[in-house]
Amino acid sequence: MDHIKTTTTTTHHPSAARAVHIAQHPYHPPHAVIPSYAPNSSSIPSIVGSFGGLILVVVASALVLARRRGGNPTLRRTDQLALCWFALCGFLHCFFEGYFVLYHASIPSSQTLFAQLWKEYAQSDSRYVTSDPFMLCIEMLTVLIWGPLSIAAAVCIVRRSPLRHLVQAGLCVGHLYGVALYYGTCYFEETFRGVSYSRPEFLYFWVYYVGFNAPWVVVPALLLRQSAAAIRRSFVASYGPEEQDDTSLSPREGNEGHPMSSTVEVKAPSLEAKKHL
Amino acid sequence: MDHIKTTTTTTHHPSAARAVHIAQHPYHPPHAVIPSYAPNSSSIPSIVGSFGGLILVVVASALVLARRRGGNPTLRRTDQLALCWFALCGFLHCFFEGYFVLYHASIPSSQTLFAQLWKEYAQSDSRYVTSDPFMLCIEMLTVLIWGPLSIAAAVCIVRRSPLRHLVQAGLCVGHLYGVALYYGTCYFEETFRGVSYSRPEFLYFWVYYVGFNAPWVVVPALLLRQSAAAIRRSFVASYGPEEQDDTSLSPREGNEGHPMSSTVEVKAPSLEAKKHL
Repeated sequence: MDHIKTTTTTTHHPSAARAVHIAQHPYHPPHAVIPSYAPNSSSIPSIVGSFGGLILVVVASALVLARRRGGNPTLRRTDQLALCWFALCGFLHCFFEGYFVLYHASIPSSQTLFAQLWKEYAQSDSRYVTSDPFMLCIEMLTVLIWGPLSIAAAVCIVRRSPLRHLVQAGLCVGHLYGVALYYGTCYFEETFRGVSYSRPEFLYFWVYYVGFNAPWVVVPALLLRQSAAAIRRSFVASYGPEEQDDTSLSPREGNEGHPMSSTVEVKAPSLEAKKHL
Repeated sequence: MDHIKTTTTTTHHPSAARAVHIAQHPYHPPHAVIPSYAPNSSSIPSIVGSFGGLILVVVASALVLARRRGGNPTLRRTDQLALCWFALCGFLHCFFEGYFVLYHASIPSSQTLFAQLWKEYAQSDSRYVTSDPFMLCIEMLTVLIWGPLSIAAAVCIVRRSPLRHLVQAGLCVGHLYGVALYYGTCYFEETFRGVSYSRPEFLYFWVYYVGFNAPWVVVPALLLRQSAAAIRRSFVASYGPEEQDDTSLSPREGNEGHPMSSTVEVKAPSLEAKKHL
């Protein structure tokens, strides 16, 4: 936080005859209004170390819990990795981003661990210290929907639930769409309005802004591919490669004449289906 | 378009000694800058009628094509409705919203059918005539992702593809997230910045803004419920109620020891599974 610029300017407007301070903070754009800003009281290694430790404890606890109490000690390695990912997402969405949604107005002046982390990160995206309506909206949806769904996905993995790939695929679509909007709004804001929310330094733009969000492009893309393949295989295995389950919009409506009606046996996987397994 | 307000104001700023017109358009907020705005040259019934006719032709054509050439004349009624919905979405996303993405800068002054429709609709959301970065971003993603995916969902229904419910569920998550952000950004913008993008009249707020977007809440919710049930049933039918398909993040990794490895037959649906069909 050694980038605080205090630019003093004067205007000719009668109501602003005295000097006006247009930036008392390190964020971009410099004209962003953050009147209550107070620099962090702790060092970067200290807050990042505490946060890293907290994340490690949460993820490791989830893994240990899943292996011990999930009744499934033979959870595959890739599923253990997915479980760690969803535990990480659940923690970040519900608590770290939840903190932002609840306390966004007081973050610039606050010195709690989470507030200091947000103030540090906001050098790569000042929308987090200006109560930006888009950030508040997307973060509230993240806290209310993607957070609980991340935890649900972790639970589904441990329980080997038939809902696992449904939840995982839905969550991945949400993550990919969300990160595309997150990057995209900044890109369009800069292109059409010339406003950049990130400081230009390598650390802030490439490490914080690009680097810290890139996992939400890469991992959901891999997990979505996994779920898509699993769902496709399941349908092919159940109903053959060219026929699908089919239900009405209203579950109460009869399935007259359809091969998947309740009185019809599920047909054995065809040769074609087996090829895909 | 009989709401055009021309407010004339003066400032004391030396560079603005002459009168400044702050609104030459019918949109909210009145201080929105839309210098090239030209009122629509056609009447509302005329442009709405043309658009309605166009939509009818597109949807009816998709339905006729699906019934005649899809090789599936016995497509269930609910699937025909879903097909019509996806054809409508595909048309709106790719063409109507595609027009906005391509020509957003010239829409306020243009008199093409689509431009006049956008100018009329923008009375309920002026972001469509101000090249708003969030709208451009979310609409570009809609055109590039949800548009083609809507067409893919329609094709999957006709072909009874095993990918149908995967595509449908992903698209529905996208639609629900998108409409939540669409409504949500306006809500937060009004709450935190006091800016309303909609004219307050019943027609604009309730019919255009709420009413025209509400189908993207209701229909995707119903279709997502349908797909969720179908995917769950398929997994239960294939692998039993407490066991799921399971693949690694890397498809090339071996499936050692797992019931769904390539050398293991798909087990017959259990009694429990049959109960759910």
